[in-house]
Amino acid sequence: MPYTLQQLSDLEDIRLLKHRYYRGIDTADEALLKTLFTDDISVEYRGGSYVAKLQGRDAMMDFILNSFHSDAVAMHQGHMPEITFTGDDSADGLWYLEDIYISLERKNVTAGSAIYRDRYVRIDGEWKIASTEYDRVMEVIEPLRPDMQITTHYLAKAGRKREERGDISHMITFTDAAQ
Amino acid sequence: MPYTLQQLSDLEDIRLLKHRYYRGIDTADEALLKTLFTDDISVEYRGGSYVAKLQGRDAMMDFILNSFHSDAVAMHQGHMPEITFTGDDSADGLWYLEDIYISLERKNVTAGSAIYRDRYVRIDGEWKIASTEYDRVMEVIEPLRPDMQITTHYLAKAGRKREERGDISHMITFTDAAQ
Amino acid sequence: MPYTLQQLSDLEDIRLLKHRYYRGIDTADEALLKTLFTDDISVEYRGGSYVAKLQGRDAMMDFILNSFHSDAVAMHQGHMPEITFTGDDSADGLWYLEDIYISLERKNVTAGSAIYRDRYVRIDGEWKIASTEYDRVMEVIEPLRPDMQITTHYLAKAGRKREERGDISHMITFTDAAQ
Repeated sequence: MPYTLQQLSDLEDIRLLKHRYYRGIDTADEALLKTLFTDDISVEYRGGSYVAKLQGRDAMMDFILNSFHSDAVAMHQGHMPEITFTGDDSADGLWYLEDIYISLERKNVTAGSAIYRDRYVRIDGEWKIASTEYDRVMEVIEPLRPDMQITTHYLAKAGRKREERGDISHMITFTDAAQ
Repeated sequence: MPYTLQQLSDLEDIRLLKHRYYRGIDTADEALLKTLFTDDISVEYRGGSYVAKLQGRDAMMDFILNSFHSDAVAMHQGHMPEITFTGDDSADGLWYLEDIYISLERKNVTAGSAIYRDRYVRIDGEWKIASTEYDRVMEVIEPLRPDMQITTHYLAKAGRKREERGDISHMITFTDAAQ
Repeated sequence: MPYTLQQLSDLEDIRLLKHRYYRGIDTADEALLKTLFTDDISVEYRGGSYVAKLQGRDAMMDFILNSFHSDAVAMHQGHMPEITFTGDDSADGLWYLEDIYISLERKNVTAGSAIYRDRYVRIDGEWKIASTEYDRVMEVIEPLRPDMQITTHYLAKAGRKREERGDISHMITFTDAAQ
């Protein structure tokens, strides 16, 4: 069965939703990010050395803005969506992430990939992320070498400064890194 | 001439097909991969220091599962498709790959890009990859440095263990690396 | 309001246009690149340590072919388009770039990301890039290490040799790298 025109249109809108999510986190774009989630979004990110788990838009905004702060240099790009409709106003989505996260505090570079499994719903005509999870496929951590020169760092200005940050440690469980 | 609704629907299905291919190889997902190829798929991958050449789904499955094994840490993401219909049930496709392959046996990291040229056909209502080739655009090999910590390695569990692997050396010709 | 069939078709064509741009620069494909721009294209690329600014297709071709030359090893991939129609024959587009550029002359590797903001117009039935800008999100420069082996370098053959290159220094203003 081919997709209907409405479905093809919805696929474009769902892709846009997730594209804005990735752009929003790397640029700490609070106004944009706020529009992307349901009130009761459910989140579980299973990384190489951590699990982040939280519920609700407010917690999600807290989590993002305290992770993508002025001491982070970040690139998160979601690729190769596999979107499946589960109803007229709901869909599941799978994305394959590539990410780089330089921590100027820990002086290291985390790079890798992950597979996201999302659920989207349409509320008042707008698609929103209702739940999102990822599992890492690959993760490598290496020191930030002294001869690596950071010549652009967008979050230095856009991200929260140290004194503006909140505590999100209750959302994160650290696990054994070695796998 | 604009695309028809059927063609736009087919474009989505062809993209999905290839998205599953890349996800399938990096996660050694045998059940998924088996559904993606024609019986007589033709493959030729021209890398920086090798050419891999083979025919048929069985050979392709052998090639993949003995390449993406428990000593490989892999990321293969296909980007920016350029798909052209050559009939109601056939299409050509061009993709621009980014890939990272860490060999724990050779203790090195191969990273780069390639341009895929594929042919797709619809058989019994399902799009399949009928032929696939790539040429490298960029390839860099560097040692796996002692201070690189691999914190997630999906294929360690999902990939074939050493004692389970078959010999695929007859599919690969090694060439002069320096270009 | 859902997209119309014409709009979905145009979205595909606009994506193709930009996909060809990225593939064209990394492979120095002059014949392909020439077809992608309006006569009076306007360009401004704001990098970590430079601003490149130019007007017109001829200047753009000069800029590209003297940047992606035989001493460059390049990967430029545009991701996650956000395209908005501004008329029947015009659209704005936002893309999130990942790029790697190895300079064999400066013996360094520049890697990072940027957000493109483009304008597209349809002229005689073909979508063209009428203006393009980017701002860097992340940029890291590191030395090309002696143990990095470049095993594929497409531009070595396809790119302009030293004696064939023109001067594009009037298009580029170097700025303070440290941010």
